[in-house]
This record gives sequence, structure tokens and C-alpha cells, in this order.
Amino acid sequence: MLIGIDLGGTNIAAGLVNDEGELIFKKSIPTMADRPAEELIKDIYMLIDELRNSTDQEVEAVGIGIPGLVNKDMSVVLTCANLHWNHVRLMDGLKNLGLPIAIDNDANVAAYAEYKIGSLKGVANGIMVTLGTGVGGGIIIDDREVRGGHGIGTELGHMIIGDNFYDCNCGSNGCFETFASATAIIKYAEHLVETTELPSKLRELDKITAKDVIDLSKEEDVIACETYERFIKYLARGIVNVLVLLDPERIALGGGVSGAGDYLLERLKKEVDKQYFLSEFSDVELVISELGNDAGIIGAALVAKDHYN
Amino acid sequence: MLIGIDLGGTNIAAGLVNDEGELIFKKSIPTMADRPAEELIKDIYMLIDELRNSTDQEVEAVGIGIPGLVNKDMSVVLTCANLHWNHVRLMDGLKNLGLPIAIDNDANVAAYAEYKIGSLKGVANGIMVTLGTGVGGGIIIDDREVRGGHGIGTELGHMIIGDNFYDCNCGSNGCFETFASATAIIKYAEHLVETTELPSKLRELDKITAKDVIDLSKEEDVIACETYERFIKYLARGIVNVLVLLDPERIALGGGVSGAGDYLLERLKKEVDKQYFLSEFSDVELVISELGNDAGIIGAALVAKDHYN
Repeated sequence: MLIGIDLGGTNIAAGLVNDEGELIFKKSIPTMADRPAEELIKDIYMLIDELRNSTDQEVEAVGIGIPGLVNKDMSVVLTCANLHWNHVRLMDGLKNLGLPIAIDNDANVAAYAEYKIGSLKGVANGIMVTLGTGVGGGIIIDDREVRGGHGIGTELGHMIIGDNFYDCNCGSNGCFETFASATAIIKYAEHLVETTELPSKLRELDKITAKDVIDLSKEEDVIACETYERFIKYLARGIVNVLVLLDPERIALGGGVSGAGDYLLERLKKEVDKQYFLSEFSDVELVISELGNDAGIIGAALVAKDHYN
Repeated sequence: MLIGIDLGGTNIAAGLVNDEGELIFKKSIPTMADRPAEELIKDIYMLIDELRNSTDQEVEAVGIGIPGLVNKDMSVVLTCANLHWNHVRLMDGLKNLGLPIAIDNDANVAAYAEYKIGSLKGVANGIMVTLGTGVGGGIIIDDREVRGGHGIGTELGHMIIGDNFYDCNCGSNGCFETFASATAIIKYAEHLVETTELPSKLRELDKITAKDVIDLSKEEDVIACETYERFIKYLARGIVNVLVLLDPERIALGGGVSGAGDYLLERLKKEVDKQYFLSEFSDVELVISELGNDAGIIGAALVAKDHYN
């Protein structure tokens, strides 16, 4: 039996995961990120202890996914903005549990879960691209998780792919995530509402969501269509950049925006095919991720298992 | 003993390489790329046979680097524009030699040579970026060559990183190599000569080379400086894209433009540091590649060795 922890800025989700990657039992507590690291670590300790005592099977390893950078030996959180953590020796704080523990980036472990039991299963080179508030991802090459030389793994949302009308939170202009995230969709729709006279039902809404834009684009709404087409164009561009760099066999799309499913995939495949100059030599597959929010818990557990095996 | 072949559009360079990657003996013959593949393969056959007979040691393996795409089992050249080859069963044509043969992309094997005995030695995650007529490269992750899912390896010169005033040969606009190759430097300098009244010694030249631009930028020549600064800005942008995607420990620059050495590195390091939002978490090194033109022969030999070991 394994334990996986998905340490987020809002909740700490933890679960018992079996060797096949099935989530057996799940429990979630609030993170309360503003308190001192020691208190938070104490709660994680208690949570692991509780899960361990809830099963009569031996716990082989514990994996913890965090929204930040982790050092090479998977013991220290180098930085984690959401938790205001810098150089937190998380593994040390949990050592009295007497369990093998591995800490890793949350996007990396989610990609690993998809690779082991989800949408990236069966390929040696697969990439997960998460389209949420930002754009994140995880990379599998030659059947291994890419953790990078400094624990950064991939921050593919910050590839620069063009010039944009607003700057990214990271300080740069033109980052992939400022074109292809839910936030990017909202910002561009709002931009058209404010700077044009184009007709649109979006003008009647108090607050525009990415889902509003995608849904209205199906109804030929002018601003929604223009926003959606721009989103597809740049999403394809970012994906093509990943293809020319790494030549994977499959790319899985996750995050809220991927909920658009086939509507998104069909249009996107055409655009990728159009933009990718090597498309005749590549049969890369574009798919929607399968594990949803549980990928974090499952992936953390499986990374820990494979790290200690 | 190993044999490495660097199969180029102009010359076929071949060499005896020992297990330490030292080039013991080298011979080169003209490619004459316009003739039928069978004739060309016959010449490669003869060349390998000659090299084999020139040493009293046993030849363990033969590696062949080609400027194109190779299938997964390293036997078939899928496409090679310079040779007008498509689906050429190169390994079959050489099987009567009775030697283990591995075929691979030339940029990949050059990067592998740098990783084994050159500028990328000692790091698990290293990337070679070649600044020549175009921009090419090779990627090492977790001590392994990245060959990709379809033999494409990396075509990092075709990452789109902005909008440019001319289109790339591949059909796209904004490819990394249209900003950061020798060709890109020449084109932008010519563009400034033609479209501005800026003073420059470049106006006196019949034909501008990248070296002219770089040399004159040291003398504060206005067009040369503006061209060089733009080159540095976009070279850094492409490199930063690679950093956010793969978080390597070291990047080696090769190709003609890298001949500018420290003059290039010093300015580039500052620009990368400025553009890379994670620079405080990364001590990535930027270096000049070490093996020059022999990297192709040596890398092909070493890839074959490690493939069959």
C-alpha cells in the first residue's frame, strides 16, 4: 500500500493508493497556508499516520506533490510560493514516521500518474499540458519522469511564443500561458468587449468565464469565436514548440479548459497539423487526460513507489 | 575500436575512434549527393571496409550520423533532404560487412559526443545548441540521448519565439533559427542596410557575413551593434524557452557563430539571467562546445558503442 499527498494552497488531499494506482480512500483537510511551516508539517504528519492506521496492509512509501520546486534527492522544498516556503526540510519533519518519503512537483507527479495508469499509458515519450488558471505540465521521456537539473521539471507555460497585449505574472511578455490558459481566454474576451464594438452575448455577463467563451463559440457568438480561434492558434503553437523540441508520441491535455473535450481536440488537431512542419513524419496523438484531480494523489504515491523500488 | 561516419551533403567523413572517444584516423570522400542511394551506400561500405582493414584491432560497432530522421531501431533513414533520401534501408545495404551498425541524427550524435567527452561531460541534463546556417541541437536528459518518439530528436531551431520580418524555410514565421543563426544575423544586417539610413561599415561590403557583423559590433558600428543586440536578445529567448521546458544543468553552444567565444558568452549570460524568471533557482552553465567538426564522427561511434553494449 502507498500514501499520496497533494499539498495545495487551499487543501491538503491525501489518499491510500494500492500498487496498481487505485485510490482506495481519500481524506482532505484545509491547508491554512498562512501558518508557520512547522504547524502545517505537523498536520501532514498526523494525516499520514491516520491513513497508515486505517489499513491493515504495510505502507511501502509516501509521496508528496507540492506546487513548487524540490531538490534532487526529493527531501527539501526549495520554494513554494503558495505556501510561502523557502528551503523547507519537509522530509526531516516527517522522519519520525519511519516511512520512505519522496517529495516532488505536483504537475510532474500528475503527469506520472497519467503515464502509469491514465491517458499517457503505453507511450515512452508523453507530455501532459494542464490548461487551468495558468498552463503547467509534466514530461515523460524514455519512460522516465523529467525532473530537471534543479528540480524545476518543466514550466512550459512560460515558454515565450509571441507578443501579447498583457504581461505574464513572471514578468515576461508572450508566455504560453498568457495565450492558452483559462485566464488568457477571459482576458482576451474582456479585451475585445472593451476595445471593440463587436456584438456578443458576453457583454451581458457580469463576469466572463472561460467556459462562457467556449460555450458561446459553439453558438457563433462573434467575440467568443474570435477569442476561441485565437486560443486554438496559440495553444497549437505552444504544443508545436513542444513537438519540435521533444518529438513525443502523445500529448494529454488536462485542467479546467480540457473539459471542452472533443470540441477542443478536433479543432486543435487540425491546427497542430497545419502548423507542424514535420507532421508527415509524426503520428503524435492529442488526447484529454483521464485522472482529473486525483492525479496528484495517485501520482505522488506512484513516484514514491518507483523512487524506492 | 569503433568506426564513426558523418554523412553530410558535401562529404562523407569517416574515422576510427577508440573506446575513449579519441579520433585515431580520419578519411573523407565527396558525397556526390545527386547519385542513386545504392551507389552512395556502396561507397560507405567500401569506406568502412577500408577503415576496418587499417587497424589490427577488432571493430566493435559502426555509427552513422545523417542530417535527417532515422527510425527507432536505428536501421532506416526515414527522410534526409540533403541526400534526397526517403525510407532508405541503409543498415540493410551494409549488412554484408557483418558489423553492428547504428544510424542516428547527426545533431544528436554530436551532442552525445560533447556529453561523453566534451563540453557537456559531467552533467546528467545537457543541451547542445548549434548556431550555424540554421539552428540545430541535441538533448541529453538523465544521462541519455533524447531520440524522440519518431526519430526526430529535437528540431529546436523551429520553436516559434516571436514575429519576424521574414519567414523560415519550414514555412512558419518566428522560428528560433530565423533570429539566432548566422543566416539570421546576415539577413537582419542587410535589412537595416536596405531600410534605414544608419551609418555602418557594413554598407561598404559586397557580401555581409555573420563574422563581419560580430567583429564590427566590437567597434561600435551602429548597424552591427543593433544587429548583434537583437541576436543576443532572441538567442537568450530561445535558450530560456529550453530552460523553462527542461531545466538542464548546462547548455553548450556550437556551430560557426559560437566561434565568437567569450565575447558571445558574457553578453548572453547576462541576457539569459535577465530573461529567465527562475534564474535564482538555477545555476545553469552556458559554455562553448569543444569538439568542433569531429563531434559528428566521434558521436556516431560512441552512440553505436553504447547502443550495442
